[in-house]
Amino acid sequence: MESFIRTAIIIERLSPSVDGGLFPVKVIVGETIKVRAAIFKDGHEIIKANIKLKKKKEDKWTYFPLHSTFNNEWEGEFTVNENDLFVYTVEAWFDPLGTWLDGTRKKCDAQMQVQSEVLEGVKLLKKLNEIISLEHENSLWRFVKLLELAEGDPEKVNKILTNQDFANLIEKNPLKFLLTTFEPELELWVERKKAEYSSWYEFFPRSQTDSVDKPGTLKSCIERLDYVKQLGFDVLYLPPIHPIGKTNRKGKNNSLIADENSPGSPWGIGSHEGGHKSIHPELGSFEDLEELRLAAEEKGIELALDIAIQCSPDHPYVKEHPEWFYQLPDGTIKYAENPPKKYQDIYPLDFNCEQAEALWHEMKDIFEFWISKGIKIFRVDNPHTKPFKFWEWVIREIKLKHPEVIFLAEAFTMPKPMQYLAKAGFTQSYTYFTWRNTKEELIEYMNELTKSEATLYFKGNFFANTPDILPKILQEGGKPAFEQRLILAATLNSNYGIFQGFEFCENKPIEAGSEEYLDSDKYEIKVRDFNSEPNLTNLISVVNSIRRDNQALHYYNNLEFYPSSNDNILCYGKRTSDNSNIIIVVINISPFQAHEDTVDLPLETFGLSDNATYEMVDLITNISYKWSGRKNYVRLDPGYQSAHIFKLVR
Amino acid sequence: MESFIRTAIIIERLSPSVDGGLFPVKVIVGETIKVRAAIFKDGHEIIKANIKLKKKKEDKWTYFPLHSTFNNEWEGEFTVNENDLFVYTVEAWFDPLGTWLDGTRKKCDAQMQVQSEVLEGVKLLKKLNEIISLEHENSLWRFVKLLELAEGDPEKVNKILTNQDFANLIEKNPLKFLLTTFEPELELWVERKKAEYSSWYEFFPRSQTDSVDKPGTLKSCIERLDYVKQLGFDVLYLPPIHPIGKTNRKGKNNSLIADENSPGSPWGIGSHEGGHKSIHPELGSFEDLEELRLAAEEKGIELALDIAIQCSPDHPYVKEHPEWFYQLPDGTIKYAENPPKKYQDIYPLDFNCEQAEALWHEMKDIFEFWISKGIKIFRVDNPHTKPFKFWEWVIREIKLKHPEVIFLAEAFTMPKPMQYLAKAGFTQSYTYFTWRNTKEELIEYMNELTKSEATLYFKGNFFANTPDILPKILQEGGKPAFEQRLILAATLNSNYGIFQGFEFCENKPIEAGSEEYLDSDKYEIKVRDFNSEPNLTNLISVVNSIRRDNQALHYYNNLEFYPSSNDNILCYGKRTSDNSNIIIVVINISPFQAHEDTVDLPLETFGLSDNATYEMVDLITNISYKWSGRKNYVRLDPGYQSAHIFKLVR
Repeated sequence: MESFIRTAIIIERLSPSVDGGLFPVKVIVGETIKVRAAIFKDGHEIIKANIKLKKKKEDKWTYFPLHSTFNNEWEGEFTVNENDLFVYTVEAWFDPLGTWLDGTRKKCDAQMQVQSEVLEGVKLLKKLNEIISLEHENSLWRFVKLLELAEGDPEKVNKILTNQDFANLIEKNPLKFLLTTFEPELELWVERKKAEYSSWYEFFPRSQTDSVDKPGTLKSCIERLDYVKQLGFDVLYLPPIHPIGKTNRKGKNNSLIADENSPGSPWGIGSHEGGHKSIHPELGSFEDLEELRLAAEEKGIELALDIAIQCSPDHPYVKEHPEWFYQLPDGTIKYAENPPKKYQDIYPLDFNCEQAEALWHEMKDIFEFWISKGIKIFRVDNPHTKPFKFWEWVIREIKLKHPEVIFLAEAFTMPKPMQYLAKAGFTQSYTYFTWRNTKEELIEYMNELTKSEATLYFKGNFFANTPDILPKILQEGGKPAFEQRLILAATLNSNYGIFQGFEFCENKPIEAGSEEYLDSDKYEIKVRDFNSEPNLTNLISVVNSIRRDNQALHYYNNLEFYPSSNDNILCYGKRTSDNSNIIIVVINISPFQAHEDTVDLPLETFGLSDNATYEMVDLITNISYKWSGRKNYVRLDPGYQSAHIFKLVR
Repeated sequence: MESFIRTAIIIERLSPSVDGGLFPVKVIVGETIKVRAAIFKDGHEIIKANIKLKKKKEDKWTYFPLHSTFNNEWEGEFTVNENDLFVYTVEAWFDPLGTWLDGTRKKCDAQMQVQSEVLEGVKLLKKLNEIISLEHENSLWRFVKLLELAEGDPEKVNKILTNQDFANLIEKNPLKFLLTTFEPELELWVERKKAEYSSWYEFFPRSQTDSVDKPGTLKSCIERLDYVKQLGFDVLYLPPIHPIGKTNRKGKNNSLIADENSPGSPWGIGSHEGGHKSIHPELGSFEDLEELRLAAEEKGIELALDIAIQCSPDHPYVKEHPEWFYQLPDGTIKYAENPPKKYQDIYPLDFNCEQAEALWHEMKDIFEFWISKGIKIFRVDNPHTKPFKFWEWVIREIKLKHPEVIFLAEAFTMPKPMQYLAKAGFTQSYTYFTWRNTKEELIEYMNELTKSEATLYFKGNFFANTPDILPKILQEGGKPAFEQRLILAATLNSNYGIFQGFEFCENKPIEAGSEEYLDSDKYEIKVRDFNSEPNLTNLISVVNSIRRDNQALHYYNNLEFYPSSNDNILCYGKRTSDNSNIIIVVINISPFQAHEDTVDLPLETFGLSDNATYEMVDLITNISYKWSGRKNYVRLDPGYQSAHIFKLVR
């Protein structure tokens, strides 16, 4: 029955916490974490409470005070400046000396004799002596002596009790009776800033060429880095760079029969030249990759690799580990299928096979291998088609050794599995952004992403297009649609990206009603004219430099929508918590016609009075507007300019 | 690494659940429990899922199907008809035969050859044979034979696969691959109906007399039972019936000095005549209690006793177990105090003392003792001043042996501790009802009580008055206030009660601004004139019989507010889920003047069209009104009738 004594204080409703501690909370290096809990006990004694924080792998706790607000709620906060896994919890205790001090003072004030109270206090102070630091010991004994000399006289005792040194002594050296600690300890992944603020550019290395006859290589990618830097991106993401299978290889435009020269899809991984730990010989060598990585880093660009866990029929695993695949009764290996469709160029792996343990470890080794080559960002292909528990295991294993690694989940699936992958460890996730076009859709989706409980673990990354998704609005809306979707992605979200070709407004689908690109990079070597028109490279450079220069755009959860009445005008802002940087976007989301509106800004939350006059600097055009009061008129013509990205200057 | 295979299916967000399973969910015998969970796995295979339910103390599970709705959500339900502690969870599995059947059918429909698929299916059917019941075995082998004979011909195979017997065979005999069970098992307290529907009457046994010189006894209580039954109550609650201490006994009107004849407060428990397991000799014997209990039960009235864990200085525990009390440095025992106030007639027990284990067990024995005397309802005095973990332990211990026992918490404290006591096991709780008077306050509070997550464990009991609470509105509002507060308590809540004297509109406070009664039963023997005016006995009888006759009023969570524009007119209803009983209350909550309003009923939810004509029978007056459409006019004059309790008749 020892336990009931130790749990005399109730600590509940501790936040932040994900599913009661089943999964880690994710925060960013330097972020201040506000902790809340309900803490109470029976009776009227004084409770005190701390937050306890430590690195998961270390033993030493750091303490931060909690203070009570009202309704038995307590609050406190701390900041973590290291990219690692931490744990935190809350401890609370009954403060017998504080309670005694408080009660005895009240009695003294009421002129009651306090002989017995002094005896109680002296007893407690002697207990305190057992734990007190040497420097305070003299002071403690002095007060004991004074209390004994006061002989219970209320005035004399009160004089001692109201001595600030005495209060400090007790405050600084708490006797923690009935110390209770909240269980379980809650995990806290402190991730590096790039988890929250990143600008991605995707291209196929083999397309970085000016001639189909001379496919691009890792070396030619190096030559393209200046262009990527000029655009202003800080992550360069390459589709799989492994050898590509020949058996059932797909041809141009995903045709079932490939001609001799078809290079194949980079996602048809594995040939006699190697598998997931090899580089396609036509792309180059590991030395080339190293050179590319270092050259990129020099320009402030990180390389991200694609990990797609699937095999072409020619993958070495097929011969070496047929037991990892789905085997048919006749002993052959089963293609991927979604009956009645068959995907004969792909063999999925059976993560629940008899030899799953070896398979899981080999898959982990693939990540470890590329980490050893200096890669710290992985875009993971279709993670929702592999067991969720595999991701939970593998990401934790990897991040415990390499906390800086970032995993982007390409999980176009239902909301709950998407969220679960984030709980399981994925740093960022693809989203439904490409299919959210109307004002209502955008506001609802952004609130879901940035205001719901999911923000404790889920961070979306807004790709305006991908090799698999050419959204309808880009097919139909021409250059204005590209401009609008770029600005929406880059300012609604601190993480965003585009796939090469976006800047040239490439928008031909393989067929009407399809979101697949015609002549996609996925199945051929694509040569682009970097001077083609229409061309968004200037706008992209400007938008990315606005992102860089304005801290308000570096946060994921600080989005606010402001009222406007026109359904085609969206107005929103992002601010730093101290209002030192206030960015306000007003955008016409129709590519087809001009719209005007009066937008209504909550000036008081910006620290301005409702009739203030202030400057709105359009960071795209560098034109400055004088606005006054909450309501101001805006007209946006997609033929000329679809959006303002304003910086508010007071 | 075995574990990752067993958890291939994700089951999360299981409800109902309290704090992720830390506390039991509470339901009522006969209630249908709707279970929801998010269930999904990687890939496209068919998932199936069950609810598993069993008594905590037994081993055998009962299964109820879950079906998927949308967005990876699954739903199912079950009903429990036994007052006991149950546990439930959810299991889900990958259905390989269902998945195979579905995929193979699609291929057959597409006219593809299915030789390999048939081989796969036969392999699965042979696995099924290992677990199938004997009666289905022949049928199974017949289908295997047929499939083999079909030789992969899509038409022939399809004919077998679309055979209803084959579908049934597979449906009824699931192969459960990757079977995953949600953890932890969630506890479910199935309580008897009285936990949800109860009408309480409180009186002091010693006041059941017609002369101060002849104090009431348990025997005289028997004579009062007809009156209680006539009023229509089904729980009779007695303040503590134990011997009362003499030392520092409080006198009339809580005076510090009691005269010779002062009977003392029943909460000053314990004298040389005994403590918490004794009956005050002046009240009678255990035989008398037994007689009272049986006589009450015969009239459909259950006895509820008060358990107040505190001692007078004369309690036998003080001598026998001084170690259970707070001892001062001089060896004496500490009074209860709230500095600078001292309560010298009460010694609190120290639940965290060195010998706490013995103390806790003795406190448990008090409950067990009265349970052995046939008592099944306890009103617990000030539970929030004893450790919450004590209640968690003692209520669980008792209810595991005596699931029928009901505990009412007299916890007038902050919301979170109140709710925690309910989580810890208290069946019902006192509430803030007495201090909720305005329309806004009542609606807000009722929504908090009946619509929030707390309804999973918390059930309030609305006492319109108590020996400690004579609310201001009763002091000022005269008879109309008593009528209104009675009807509010009895129709807003399925659990309610009054303390004797309410029916005679007793409303004199001990002093202006106090909620204490003048000449309270707590400190003297009180003789009442049962024919005094004003008198609410008729109205109370009517209201209680309306409650009995209308099932809609037997549920705690089915309250709905309906719009009305006058701030003094409150309109609300309670319905059975099949709309077979619809009660609508329209009440003027001002005791001071008549008010009129147009109330707006959501006829469509009652199964009526918006222009329907229907009958509204006022169950208080038995007058029937013809209403039509949603909006109807009402005028309520507190001088005449403050409220309608309508039954809607179509």
